[in-house]
Amino acid sequence: MQRLNQQLEMLMEIDQLKNVLRRTRVKSAQGRLENSAEHSWHVATMAMLTQEHANAEVDIARVLKMLLLHDIVEIDAGDTFVYDVVASKDQEQKELLAADRLFGYLPEGQREELRAIWDEFEAATTDDAKFAKALDRFIPMLLNYHNQGQSWVEHQVKRSQVIAINGRIQQGSETLWQKALQIIDEAVENGWLKDE
Amino acid sequence: MQRLNQQLEMLMEIDQLKNVLRRTRVKSAQGRLENSAEHSWHVATMAMLTQEHANAEVDIARVLKMLLLHDIVEIDAGDTFVYDVVASKDQEQKELLAADRLFGYLPEGQREELRAIWDEFEAATTDDAKFAKALDRFIPMLLNYHNQGQSWVEHQVKRSQVIAINGRIQQGSETLWQKALQIIDEAVENGWLKDE
Repeated sequence: MQRLNQQLEMLMEIDQLKNVLRRTRVKSAQGRLENSAEHSWHVATMAMLTQEHANAEVDIARVLKMLLLHDIVEIDAGDTFVYDVVASKDQEQKELLAADRLFGYLPEGQREELRAIWDEFEAATTDDAKFAKALDRFIPMLLNYHNQGQSWVEHQVKRSQVIAINGRIQQGSETLWQKALQIIDEAVENGWLKDE
Repeated sequence: MQRLNQQLEMLMEIDQLKNVLRRTRVKSAQGRLENSAEHSWHVATMAMLTQEHANAEVDIARVLKMLLLHDIVEIDAGDTFVYDVVASKDQEQKELLAADRLFGYLPEGQREELRAIWDEFEAATTDDAKFAKALDRFIPMLLNYHNQGQSWVEHQVKRSQVIAINGRIQQGSETLWQKALQIIDEAVENGWLKDE
């Protein structure tokens, strides 16, 4: 029961992810901001649906674990807008401290195992992590596209920024990257992305 | 690209799960109602954390898929309070129709595969599904407990109802059921559950 108690403490601590707000808005919920818990569900579900488009064969259990855990550090560090390059540097340090604190709830063995999964996602060098990262980059573009480019317009994002930041999608899935380029082209045509 | 387009249509359709509200409240978010998308993230994450307590060895990838998908039918059918026995009967038919509609977005092969996963969760007869169901029953009790019994108090739930409805936790995890009984006893002592 001791191990279970530690696991449930962790589970209650990360409940706070439901209160971390992102820059994307939920179309079906009167345009309120999306939170990182529902984003984590959406992107993990995307992995299950689009696994066949990964460049390399992936272990779906590991990809799902990465995506369920990837944002929990935002509980301490907050969400950083992907196009905010200055904030992103300081963010890394905060997230490492958050990972130390949060995975510290877990019992021995599991603590090291799940921390390694989180580190692997961050490093994005393995096939599983490259695919997981690609999905995490792709899904906000898809939501934005279905929301008349809302967060690009709100934050005056340029086409060149979208290409630079999301280019790594290609490392995880060539097919998803081709789709991303279609989305970007249409967004520019519709005036949702600045063509610079 | 045709298969990907169908998968992304499904993904955008189930975005609406972020707008389906449950009876539980999110403590860390000023007590607003929890939605089914963030619940799905939380319960899938719980599966990853507590796998070792399943009565039988489970295939965690299948358990995670079940939990990511289990509530999508609520987009059409709405969430039913687990203690509302009358509503639960009509609900079943609505959920089957919703499953037909939603899994219908997917390309051939995948449609049948994921629908079978959803059906398996509903039937709750395999080891994977029994464990997944146990978690889906356990987690609202845990949230309630950490919220001074909020939804039990709001809906005047009795101890006997909690035992009857959640007894199936034992089929998936004896350890979780022992923990559930502890939670129920404390809730009665604290006056959060009516002792009948």
